[in-house]
Amino acid sequence: MIVLNGGSSSGKSGIVRCLQAVLPAPWLAMAIDTFVESLPAAMRAGDAGIGVDVDGGVTVGAEFRRLEAAWMTGVAATAHAGAPIIVDDVFLGGAASQERWRAALAGLEVLWVGVHCDPAVAEGREIARGDRAIGMAAKQATLVHEGVLYDVEVDTTHTESLACARTIAAQMH
Amino acid sequence: MIVLNGGSSSGKSGIVRCLQAVLPAPWLAMAIDTFVESLPAAMRAGDAGIGVDVDGGVTVGAEFRRLEAAWMTGVAATAHAGAPIIVDDVFLGGAASQERWRAALAGLEVLWVGVHCDPAVAEGREIARGDRAIGMAAKQATLVHEGVLYDVEVDTTHTESLACARTIAAQMH
Amino acid sequence: MIVLNGGSSSGKSGIVRCLQAVLPAPWLAMAIDTFVESLPAAMRAGDAGIGVDVDGGVTVGAEFRRLEAAWMTGVAATAHAGAPIIVDDVFLGGAASQERWRAALAGLEVLWVGVHCDPAVAEGREIARGDRAIGMAAKQATLVHEGVLYDVEVDTTHTESLACARTIAAQMH
Amino acid sequence: MIVLNGGSSSGKSGIVRCLQAVLPAPWLAMAIDTFVESLPAAMRAGDAGIGVDVDGGVTVGAEFRRLEAAWMTGVAATAHAGAPIIVDDVFLGGAASQERWRAALAGLEVLWVGVHCDPAVAEGREIARGDRAIGMAAKQATLVHEGVLYDVEVDTTHTESLACARTIAAQMH
Repeated sequence: MIVLNGGSSSGKSGIVRCLQAVLPAPWLAMAIDTFVESLPAAMRAGDAGIGVDVDGGVTVGAEFRRLEAAWMTGVAATAHAGAPIIVDDVFLGGAASQERWRAALAGLEVLWVGVHCDPAVAEGREIARGDRAIGMAAKQATLVHEGVLYDVEVDTTHTESLACARTIAAQMH
Repeated sequence: MIVLNGGSSSGKSGIVRCLQAVLPAPWLAMAIDTFVESLPAAMRAGDAGIGVDVDGGVTVGAEFRRLEAAWMTGVAATAHAGAPIIVDDVFLGGAASQERWRAALAGLEVLWVGVHCDPAVAEGREIARGDRAIGMAAKQATLVHEGVLYDVEVDTTHTESLACARTIAAQMH
Repeated sequence: MIVLNGGSSSGKSGIVRCLQAVLPAPWLAMAIDTFVESLPAAMRAGDAGIGVDVDGGVTVGAEFRRLEAAWMTGVAATAHAGAPIIVDDVFLGGAASQERWRAALAGLEVLWVGVHCDPAVAEGREIARGDRAIGMAAKQATLVHEGVLYDVEVDTTHTESLACARTIAAQMH
Repeated sequence: MIVLNGGSSSGKSGIVRCLQAVLPAPWLAMAIDTFVESLPAAMRAGDAGIGVDVDGGVTVGAEFRRLEAAWMTGVAATAHAGAPIIVDDVFLGGAASQERWRAALAGLEVLWVGVHCDPAVAEGREIARGDRAIGMAAKQATLVHEGVLYDVEVDTTHTESLACARTIAAQMH
């Protein structure tokens, strides 16, 4: 398993697609964004679910956490059943988020990857992509890494996704 | 668990969204299409993965089947961990596909739902949506139901997604 | 030129794709939604531009109207230059909206098409598609047709997009 | 008017969104990709329209050229009617493509912008975005600039979209 953690617009999903292209065997991509899209529409806007305010702050409710925990269990089971998986997440809780994943992935070999990006650069890319609430990238850029321990760290500020993917792939053995 | 089976353009994903809206608790939507998108790009075009030919025929390779089996195990584990799940699949193998799901979901209560649609109507909707290879809907319309056993069957030919969802929800207890 | 008018989720864009499939020559599709996407992100959320409130009400500012008028002029010029065009719009102003198009399209032969849909059915489809503010479909269903004059009217409540497209195409000569 | 020219995956659309964010007045974005999407589905795959082969080569037919010319006339008319416009195109014909735009935009003040990107970097970004035929970026990277004259040139190889947009905006007067 590979778990990527980084703020919004730090370039995680581009790295995931490049990893899938450079790794010799087929890896499945499982993103927190895909989990969010699997929720009922009402939970993507309400108090119990996940909400994004106008300046990009993200709030997450208890019901979201409960379903997310079940999803994490499912990701682990998919890996145990033989599918190599690249997870792409935003550790809003920093070290506590990593702890939740660590518990869910017990017994699996995990490569923890930190995806860094200068907050101002991430905010520029947020404007360029045009589909995110402006402010989310800057808010999350450092927050998500607080207290998190990594095996590999990449920084997309001056390095392309493909080069980051090659750095990560070189750590696999 | 609810498992919906129907051909391409039969209206499954619309029914899933309506089910999520009408069911009182939050249900997660897990679609075979989302699994396909989680594969490396190379597997969405090659012999080992999944391919769609110009007249809408779908071929699936051994590596696809192996990863899909792991994904099914993960879906089951997510449900066992407490998240109610609506699966939306296309049983290209008919009864054999159902058997694979039945094995993966052992120990879970499952509502099997058949989503029918007149082939000519499905083909018209395939033209109207504009994002699928023309021919897939007609090819799959009856094929996917061969030998499959259901708890509920709906037909979207003359019935709206929301009404189908209400019929299905009425079977939950 | 063909101009389709109907409320949100009445099925206009499906009819447009079917029209493009059944008409012998290639027609260009030009939708008000595409115009909205061509605006700066800031105008898709602000007072000067276009806004959608939580219950699906749409408000449009003066700057939006000014740029929209320029776009209408451009659509007319594209048609005068020899490209047959299918416009897909939502006449929020009813007869006044039609009057604006009539002025912009002076000198062109236009087939005016009304796309009706029962408000409750349109609201169900709005839930099924999952990407629109709930309430917009019901709010617009009858409003957009007030005082508008048509050459052809179709109703998607019980008729498929492809059949509606054939009805419309049969009026071309 | 601003006309941006650059190869696939050179970063044009990100620059367009940043330009819309940094320019004080609202500018409309009109991309060749949007024109292609306005064509009938059959023309996006056939000989008369536009086709992309497996290694990313693009071929364009006579009917495509005829409709594209009408679209260019429409873009010019929209600008004459008072809407400032940012065009985002791929000059597959190099200087000849610029000549076609120059003729269509006669009488309008145009800022011609070249968007360069190192072919290897563009190819990496093509892999990272995951929605384009691999090979298109490298094929087009230098080809589209042959014989084209610019007022401003930016290079996204080492410069972010937002910084490129600021360089371009600084040339407006």
